[in-house]
Amino acid sequence: MRVDPSTHPTVGTAPDGTVLTSAPQDTAVDHATAAARRVVDALLRTDRTNANLERVAEELNSIAEHLEEHAPAVAERLVDMWAGEGVTRHDPVTGPENAIAPPLVVEGREDGSVQSVVTLTMPYQGPPGHAHGGVSALLLDHLLGVANAWAGRSGATAQLNVRYHRPTPLFEPLTLTGRLVAQDGRKINTIGDIRTADGTVCVSVEALFVDKTVPRPR
Amino acid sequence: MRVDPSTHPTVGTAPDGTVLTSAPQDTAVDHATAAARRVVDALLRTDRTNANLERVAEELNSIAEHLEEHAPAVAERLVDMWAGEGVTRHDPVTGPENAIAPPLVVEGREDGSVQSVVTLTMPYQGPPGHAHGGVSALLLDHLLGVANAWAGRSGATAQLNVRYHRPTPLFEPLTLTGRLVAQDGRKINTIGDIRTADGTVCVSVEALFVDKTVPRPR
Repeated sequence: MRVDPSTHPTVGTAPDGTVLTSAPQDTAVDHATAAARRVVDALLRTDRTNANLERVAEELNSIAEHLEEHAPAVAERLVDMWAGEGVTRHDPVTGPENAIAPPLVVEGREDGSVQSVVTLTMPYQGPPGHAHGGVSALLLDHLLGVANAWAGRSGATAQLNVRYHRPTPLFEPLTLTGRLVAQDGRKINTIGDIRTADGTVCVSVEALFVDKTVPRPR
Repeated sequence: MRVDPSTHPTVGTAPDGTVLTSAPQDTAVDHATAAARRVVDALLRTDRTNANLERVAEELNSIAEHLEEHAPAVAERLVDMWAGEGVTRHDPVTGPENAIAPPLVVEGREDGSVQSVVTLTMPYQGPPGHAHGGVSALLLDHLLGVANAWAGRSGATAQLNVRYHRPTPLFEPLTLTGRLVAQDGRKINTIGDIRTADGTVCVSVEALFVDKTVPRPR
């Protein structure tokens, strides 16, 4: 049974109050990141012979220069990033402020699993018209971490075993599911998979996590 | 013994003539993509209270609109992408035309292995100041595919087993190495790792590939 999608795990909705994933917000930085994500995708799709591409490069460099001029030192920025919602705003899978992230929106379910539906596009391509196998590993590794948090645990990935059953299609909705299945002291076992809309499993994963957290910068 | 870096595997340098990775070129699309990559990174580092961020969002959306207006249909674009150097220009790990890619530049070595040195930055962050475990899996999965090609084989990933030994630091040079170690008919076994400059192994991987290629679109 699915919980209301509006209650997908975010600030304070996990059993232990952990922040699981951050919903996109109506803020300038989220707007700018969404636009950058659109540029990344469009650059892979656009006509290579477009005479304006050098002008596009100039404009993008000019934007980057402006943003870099207003960037604090990396050490200072790291402290700030890890305050509040922490990495969930910046990670490369669910982060609304990271243009590399599709981004996945993850929903916690009453049965203890977490789920995300995503349609992958050109930037995530491996074989023709299909997702890169490493991208599937990236998304699942992260999703399993969210599954642990949803179950009230956290830990670093120690082992990630990914099985590829068939190519994972781009341009159609994929359902990613993850679930903590066993715990023994600091060891946590978590599984997950990626399926197409008809339920066909494309990729499955088993992972071992160990609850040894890297300290937050301060 | 290392081969001259200028001969890193690209068009026609693999034993079987396979294209392994594409070097960045002095073209408008590569310039624009490099600039987009810089924007993605700067957006994660810039001051969140910068009053110009909404203006940045508008400019990026306007660039995206222009690029989208000049984009062919996806099916047509896929055929074009897979001609010539194919995915090596567009993949999310080594592709100079993919702003998600760091991008890795991979070098074929005379001992049969392939190697890449890369410094990862903010967009690839998992734990504070360290690479996301899924990003390490993504980079290694791709690198092992290049190792196979360097050894004259190709195949889709069937199993990817990643072991995390210690956190992988951002902001310092990492060396990724891959090597085909065994083949039995269509089955190919390939291993690799990620090390810091002092040789410490952060992540290691063993993978099984099966040479069943997804046909190119045409």
